Amino acid sequence: MPKITFIPQNKEIEIESGTNLLEAADQAGLYIEGDCAGKGTCGKCRVKIVEGEAGNPTRADKKHLSEKELNEGWALSCQRRIKNNITVEVPVQKEAHLRKTTLAGGVEELEAEPAVEKRAVKLSRPAVKDQTADLERLLKELGRNDLSVKLRELSGLPAMLREHSYSVTAAITGNRIISIEPGDTSDQLFGIAFDIGTTTIMGSLLDLQKAAVLAVAAETNPQNIYGADVISRINHASQGQKEQKQLQDKVIEAANKIIKDLLKQTRVAKDRVYESVAVGNTTMSHLFMGVDPTYLAPAPFIPAYSRALEVEASELGLDINPAGRVTFLPNIAGYVGSDTLGVILATEMDRRSGNCAAIDIGTNGELVLVADGRLMACSTAAGPAFEGAQIKQGMRASAGAVEAVRYINQGFEVSTIDDAPARGICGSGLIDAAAALIDAGLIDATGRLTNPEQNPDQVPEKFKDRLKKGDHGMEFILVPKKDSETGEDIVLSQGDLRELQLAKGAIYAGLKILMKEAGIDEEDLDEVLLAGAFGNYVRKESALTIGLLPRLPKEKIIAVGNAAGDGSRMALASKTIRNRALALPEKVEHLELSTRQDFQEIFVDALKFS
Amino acid sequence: MPKITFIPQNKEIEIESGTNLLEAADQAGLYIEGDCAGKGTCGKCRVKIVEGEAGNPTRADKKHLSEKELNEGWALSCQRRIKNNITVEVPVQKEAHLRKTTLAGGVEELEAEPAVEKRAVKLSRPAVKDQTADLERLLKELGRNDLSVKLRELSGLPAMLREHSYSVTAAITGNRIISIEPGDTSDQLFGIAFDIGTTTIMGSLLDLQKAAVLAVAAETNPQNIYGADVISRINHASQGQKEQKQLQDKVIEAANKIIKDLLKQTRVAKDRVYESVAVGNTTMSHLFMGVDPTYLAPAPFIPAYSRALEVEASELGLDINPAGRVTFLPNIAGYVGSDTLGVILATEMDRRSGNCAAIDIGTNGELVLVADGRLMACSTAAGPAFEGAQIKQGMRASAGAVEAVRYINQGFEVSTIDDAPARGICGSGLIDAAAALIDAGLIDATGRLTNPEQNPDQVPEKFKDRLKKGDHGMEFILVPKKDSETGEDIVLSQGDLRELQLAKGAIYAGLKILMKEAGIDEEDLDEVLLAGAFGNYVRKESALTIGLLPRLPKEKIIAVGNAAGDGSRMALASKTIRNRALALPEKVEHLELSTRQDFQEIFVDALKFS
Repeated sequence: MPKITFIPQNKEIEIESGTNLLEAADQAGLYIEGDCAGKGTCGKCRVKIVEGEAGNPTRADKKHLSEKELNEGWALSCQRRIKNNITVEVPVQKEAHLRKTTLAGGVEELEAEPAVEKRAVKLSRPAVKDQTADLERLLKELGRNDLSVKLRELSGLPAMLREHSYSVTAAITGNRIISIEPGDTSDQLFGIAFDIGTTTIMGSLLDLQKAAVLAVAAETNPQNIYGADVISRINHASQGQKEQKQLQDKVIEAANKIIKDLLKQTRVAKDRVYESVAVGNTTMSHLFMGVDPTYLAPAPFIPAYSRALEVEASELGLDINPAGRVTFLPNIAGYVGSDTLGVILATEMDRRSGNCAAIDIGTNGELVLVADGRLMACSTAAGPAFEGAQIKQGMRASAGAVEAVRYINQGFEVSTIDDAPARGICGSGLIDAAAALIDAGLIDATGRLTNPEQNPDQVPEKFKDRLKKGDHGMEFILVPKKDSETGEDIVLSQGDLRELQLAKGAIYAGLKILMKEAGIDEEDLDEVLLAGAFGNYVRKESALTIGLLPRLPKEKIIAVGNAAGDGSRMALASKTIRNRALALPEKVEHLELSTRQDFQEIFVDALKFS
Repeated sequence: MPKITFIPQNKEIEIESGTNLLEAADQAGLYIEGDCAGKGTCGKCRVKIVEGEAGNPTRADKKHLSEKELNEGWALSCQRRIKNNITVEVPVQKEAHLRKTTLAGGVEELEAEPAVEKRAVKLSRPAVKDQTADLERLLKELGRNDLSVKLRELSGLPAMLREHSYSVTAAITGNRIISIEPGDTSDQLFGIAFDIGTTTIMGSLLDLQKAAVLAVAAETNPQNIYGADVISRINHASQGQKEQKQLQDKVIEAANKIIKDLLKQTRVAKDRVYESVAVGNTTMSHLFMGVDPTYLAPAPFIPAYSRALEVEASELGLDINPAGRVTFLPNIAGYVGSDTLGVILATEMDRRSGNCAAIDIGTNGELVLVADGRLMACSTAAGPAFEGAQIKQGMRASAGAVEAVRYINQGFEVSTIDDAPARGICGSGLIDAAAALIDAGLIDATGRLTNPEQNPDQVPEKFKDRLKKGDHGMEFILVPKKDSETGEDIVLSQGDLRELQLAKGAIYAGLKILMKEAGIDEEDLDEVLLAGAFGNYVRKESALTIGLLPRLPKEKIIAVGNAAGDGSRMALASKTIRNRALALPEKVEHLELSTRQDFQEIFVDALKFS
């Protein structure tokens, strides 16, 4: 079996001969950027062969890598099947998800109302005059004859009672004892809230008795090797049970990494984590639970279930207390999941008077509108452009990503995350760049980059060398090759602008339709909430300039952070809020945009940059 | 690894060098008689080494086997550690348990009231106008929005609906869907009732829609290699989790053999068996459920639980529908288990007016008394003598066992099961033999066999050669060596009589105490019910003669068959009866005999043969 050594991580792995490098890296637990599930179309999974033989460049290699790069050993990892020992250098990134972990709120002002209760009791000793069985003795002391207990806990009860002077603590939820522990552990009651994103998975460990977030951790969703978007993942899962299981394994594995991290940060024992609440889009919910998502993809987009699913941690292999309860909050529709429900919870859209819209832009875009007490939601086929996918040099928001571009004093100011040499462009950079080019008059209303050769008078002299012809139309050079990390120009291409138009158009059109349905206009909106990490980093002015958002005064546009994750934490911390969440799907009207007669027209209109 | 070939079964097995032959036979799935858990004290696990080297005779071998037998290759299988390839002959027996399967009643006149319901439904097809999720669509059609469903069932639902024209059948119990099946399977609804005996495990497959027993099967409880009685098994289990697991594995394995047999007999598919109800003594319940039974053994004899345990079949590894429910009926006390509860159910002791006693003699002896509506129960330390254990040539009720002995016309008539050459003596034979010797005047009231040398005038001439001196006192020859299969005299020994006295004394004394507590006398009893296979085969006259039963007219003594097993079947067939069973423990007063001041006196008095 060929051995692959990954540097600088210094991981070694033996693989089956013929395995491609992308899969091998995945097996070694390394994250490699990529959006196209190994098809060779995104060109992002580049690595450098430092030693050994990795086959000849494929057509995809040649398309995405220059002659020079190929000569230096660069290769697309998805393109190379490995048959000999090699050493590979993997570009290290500050993980994009880390940026998201700084946004963890939602529970600061909540009253702690845990769904799990801990009760420490001291039992009387049995005697011939009182032959009550151990379990019944415990239940009597708890005053809860209705409780059931797992065999696993019951089995150890007799010895535990006798070894600890009949002093034990029970963790109880509903009519179930989750855990029986020696001595008094009543002060230890923890839970973990998950936000299972298509791109990023976040977890927060809460002290449930204080409704306090003790730690936050995140991981890239490793399902990304099966594609950046939910449709690719559904397509993979629908191939069979094995493939479905692969996707489930990936997400559970990442969740367990997060749990490990959270427990390490807080020194909490895993058996003291009794509950987990998760939100995510409907596809993520299905894949997390191991339920067939096949029929989400084709019309009429039917989920296997919409209610909340409650299962034991051991059923999923989630590394908390094995009898702990895992609740995935309910879906609203095939493409409006419990993440949107979390947004509604966290922003209290379900309790607002007046008119308010919330836009959650992640790998997909979901919209919620409340208008005079009427709550509506829809999803838009925005695609993952804002996560950097489908964009020529798009990348996730990690070090070296162009994150801000401003047109000031007739010049462009470009900045990257961590001020690192530019490697690509992330979602906020993309919007900023487009807005800056509009401001500079270099893009017309239809989204076309000006060609200085065709329209020399429209391009100031000093920008002429920043506009060049690429493989597919014009490109604007954001960072010249001499300043970039890759040694290539970092550009915004005409293709990128088209992707951006489609994405922003879809979102704006969706919002339009919701408002049309509610019978209100843009000016009737009291507020527009931007949810998601993206909402926090995007500049409102730029979003307004490109027409992603309704034309409202800036003050009415409010970034609310990772509201989906906040909703998950809130539902974990408070039974009352969780019950509100469980009842929400019935209160939300779902609009299916794809089949509306009026959608196409509004969508096409929304593509414009004006 | 040495290889052992067992004949005539023709099973081959490789073992770790040094494994003893008893364990090896167990690994090969062969049943070898034995009561002492391999201690070498019962002398029953004899096998014949036909080829190869099996070590030298031990002290135990020499004690239980004659010089001649040793020379022929006979050995106690527990005494020989095997290091080379050998061939071993295992005496074949008609399995004792087969005799018990003929006693299966209890449900003939019941109204079918299954706890599991099957509902066939045809769902409307989803459409853009009706995007209801699959599960919600199903629950809506069932009119049961409260039902939960396992991930395993949910996962396959989308494909099943689409592949079977949206026509499915749900098996429902309580608020849980156990199974979702393609098409209409509503006519298939089966359950299995178990009676988990210390010595024998019985199972019955029922058509739950008809309350009809379709098949019965039984297996020897393979835990017997850890000892014949519950105390030996508890002691083994209390050594640690591994040992506890060994005992659980044994009983589950036997239950699965029974299930396989039942399914084969009836051609029912295992997934169509949705429920199982089990009864057994408290120790068997713990071992079946994998719960630590350690503190049942020492005073004050505390079980881990007394309530009914309901678990999923998959938790136990029981081979019915994995989501099927397995209910072990509740215990009354540490030594009065759900088997006794089954007896009460089947005999309706809980609904009788007047005074009635029930005696269930299996490996242990349990007693129930109802007196003017007051229901009492106790267990007696009768030991497994009636199953043939502790008896010099005792054996289970299989071919060649002396099962009946009568003293008629100044002579002894001895008969064996299947009229096979005598190999030993079973429980009914033991009682019969003692009664016959009492009738013949060869045993005095204290239980002493007459010694013709000391009291020549008390022994008729023709019986003088049937009384001989053994290793431990006198022995009465039931079958002379020339007629026996073993080539040895089949005898009733003075030691056997002492075991019998202890066993019958314990039972009779227990009954006396129950009556004393209730304030009634023997003559106040309307009926005495004999439960258990034993009760069916023992001759009432003999049981009366030896003083096992109250001195009542024969008509008042009624054999009721395997009432514990009947109770199990009834509780499976009828929800109403199951609910009666679940409420029973609170209605039964348990008397702990072991610590009563008056027990010893009454017990000693009850030892007498008069």
